[in-house]
Amino acid sequence: MTNAIQQLSEAIERQGLWERQFTLNRNEYLKSPERTDTNIYYVLSGSLRVAVLDGAEELTIRFGYKDSFIALLDSFFTGRPSEFYIQAIKKSELKAISKASFMALVHESAENLRLWQTILELLIIQQMEREQDILTSSPLERYKRVLARSPQLFQEIPHKYIASYLRMTPETLSRIKKT
Amino acid sequence: MTNAIQQLSEAIERQGLWERQFTLNRNEYLKSPERTDTNIYYVLSGSLRVAVLDGAEELTIRFGYKDSFIALLDSFFTGRPSEFYIQAIKKSELKAISKASFMALVHESAENLRLWQTILELLIIQQMEREQDILTSSPLERYKRVLARSPQLFQEIPHKYIASYLRMTPETLSRIKKT
Repeated sequence: MTNAIQQLSEAIERQGLWERQFTLNRNEYLKSPERTDTNIYYVLSGSLRVAVLDGAEELTIRFGYKDSFIALLDSFFTGRPSEFYIQAIKKSELKAISKASFMALVHESAENLRLWQTILELLIIQQMEREQDILTSSPLERYKRVLARSPQLFQEIPHKYIASYLRMTPETLSRIKKT
Repeated sequence: MTNAIQQLSEAIERQGLWERQFTLNRNEYLKSPERTDTNIYYVLSGSLRVAVLDGAEELTIRFGYKDSFIALLDSFFTGRPSEFYIQAIKKSELKAISKASFMALVHESAENLRLWQTILELLIIQQMEREQDILTSSPLERYKRVLARSPQLFQEIPHKYIASYLRMTPETLSRIKKT
């Protein structure tokens, strides 16, 4: 996926399709009018999370790292408001491209369409892994699964967001890490 | 999605690409050598579930209804063994197509490729909905979300599998349905 993302973002760069570049400070939210946001963002630096409210509690469902895309995929695909939102975990530098420009690029060549299809397929696989993670009832097993698959997570993301992502308290995560 | 699935399955039919048609009895598993199964199945009748083991417990993660596709998507995309498996809930009649034949058909025309892309996008949206369902901590809220989105589920699928899918005991589901 990294490779497909890299190739598409280079094509965006070459054609000058980025519409703006901006900075989010630590903890700042990416504001979206009426929560409909169909842009795709490329992370130049920093790290971000996609979160959603469950009652009063914030649940972290995805992270955005340097050199990857981040988006509200439900809005992106449907054009409707999303219950999800994006927040910077560290100060982050982003570039944005609109859905219209992005999809025009994707359909410009068979090669670009292939890259986009690769990204869609890998998203589906990631989401199946994620679903199985969440459904795994043992916190230790959940931790092991995610550690094996995403060691990067444990280097870049603060403890409390990892705990939220792993569906456990920060105290449980600390206890597991010690053992 | 139904429409895109219907159109692709009609194209498969026209070109005679179904490789076999077979019946699974109630509770029968779809046997996959070494658990790698890259076929796509079309459900002519009956209903099925995709499940995975969490320790000794079976978790239901997806259902297959009449006139829809069912597959082990992780195996399909990666070609590797899946931890998931397919089981018939009722006696079910299925038709199978290999990944190679299916993808050849998809790449045969721009129209087929567009249909496939629509299916991939809708899978991603469904998985985001599903992730949010699972993470919703209140059993009543989980029930309401799924009922609003998939009323079909409550007509076709036995109580115990709905409870498993909703991540609650059959007793909790009974209590919620009464209120």
